[in-house]
Amino acid sequence: MKILEVKKLTYFSHLNLFSTKYMDKIGNLKSWIFASRSNSPAVMKNKNNDLEQSSRPNAVVIVPFHVEHQKLVIIKEFRVPIGDYQYGFPAGLMDRGESVEETATRELKEETGLQVVEIIRTSPTIYSSTGMTDESISLVYLLCTGKPSVEWSEDSEDITVLMVSSEEAKELLLNPNVKFDVKSWIVLSTFARTGII
Amino acid sequence: MKILEVKKLTYFSHLNLFSTKYMDKIGNLKSWIFASRSNSPAVMKNKNNDLEQSSRPNAVVIVPFHVEHQKLVIIKEFRVPIGDYQYGFPAGLMDRGESVEETATRELKEETGLQVVEIIRTSPTIYSSTGMTDESISLVYLLCTGKPSVEWSEDSEDITVLMVSSEEAKELLLNPNVKFDVKSWIVLSTFARTGII
Repeated sequence: MKILEVKKLTYFSHLNLFSTKYMDKIGNLKSWIFASRSNSPAVMKNKNNDLEQSSRPNAVVIVPFHVEHQKLVIIKEFRVPIGDYQYGFPAGLMDRGESVEETATRELKEETGLQVVEIIRTSPTIYSSTGMTDESISLVYLLCTGKPSVEWSEDSEDITVLMVSSEEAKELLLNPNVKFDVKSWIVLSTFARTGII
Repeated sequence: MKILEVKKLTYFSHLNLFSTKYMDKIGNLKSWIFASRSNSPAVMKNKNNDLEQSSRPNAVVIVPFHVEHQKLVIIKEFRVPIGDYQYGFPAGLMDRGESVEETATRELKEETGLQVVEIIRTSPTIYSSTGMTDESISLVYLLCTGKPSVEWSEDSEDITVLMVSSEEAKELLLNPNVKFDVKSWIVLSTFARTGII
């Protein structure tokens, strides 16, 4: 496979479509449209061998475990693209100059009011859905403390903070009215079945 | 939060941008742009109370465990939006009229040459990344058998099939040159640490 050309198709401020021309494995010329938050999406950075930039994630997703309550922290949040509430983990885009750990600490505070006690493990840069976007995240598993509060969240964020034990995770997963994101569903399923995260 | 309007911004065949006007939690008028593969994305279906259609996933992602080898099956696949190879699970869009189990069986065969022995569990419709898209999937954990082959894959699919034990998953996760998607990274991490999927 060989990428021949990447073209920006739209000029909105936060999200755009790009078109790619590439040669498939038997030499046919093909095209692929994808979405990106970046003005130079990952395929361009890889094409230009900009390895440092291509390895930095767009966003951080936090898997917070509350040390006193011994429960996983999740948020119920209104998400515009599905027009409904979704259960997932606190998350946010990385600000310029921030490290993954700094974004995790800031977003945990903003979205849940909780404080980081210790970072347990951090994933490398991993990709949300590479059929349609170059969006990448780093998953940060951490221990946290404090009293849940949404007073630091923005007006556009409609968030409720929940804490769940392994038993409560099991119940929540069985509720047909609850919508999960992919990451929280996989992590909660393991937690419900084994008690580990 | 209240969705007031959803407008289609582009007219490409496989992926488009949509703009949404909504009222935030304190009554301010806001807008949000997102990407969708559908001509009537999830926010429209929820707005119109089309519950049956809103619960059908766009795609199926398969977590295949090979019964004779006792290993997890993953694929290394070229992904245009990142211009590089990614390690992930076999997956594909649902064809019209197909059930989740039928898509899983068809895509497993097309992308790996393997046959389904038994479906272990299936997730509900879960969302890839609701900050930027309404894309939804169902995760299908299954037992499979057969000899890996890519002879049924399409010319635009550049795929290598791999099988990994818990030990091999651990090694792969430590390789800094390997790019994972979110789902395979979480599942392989648990498998590497505990031997369970």
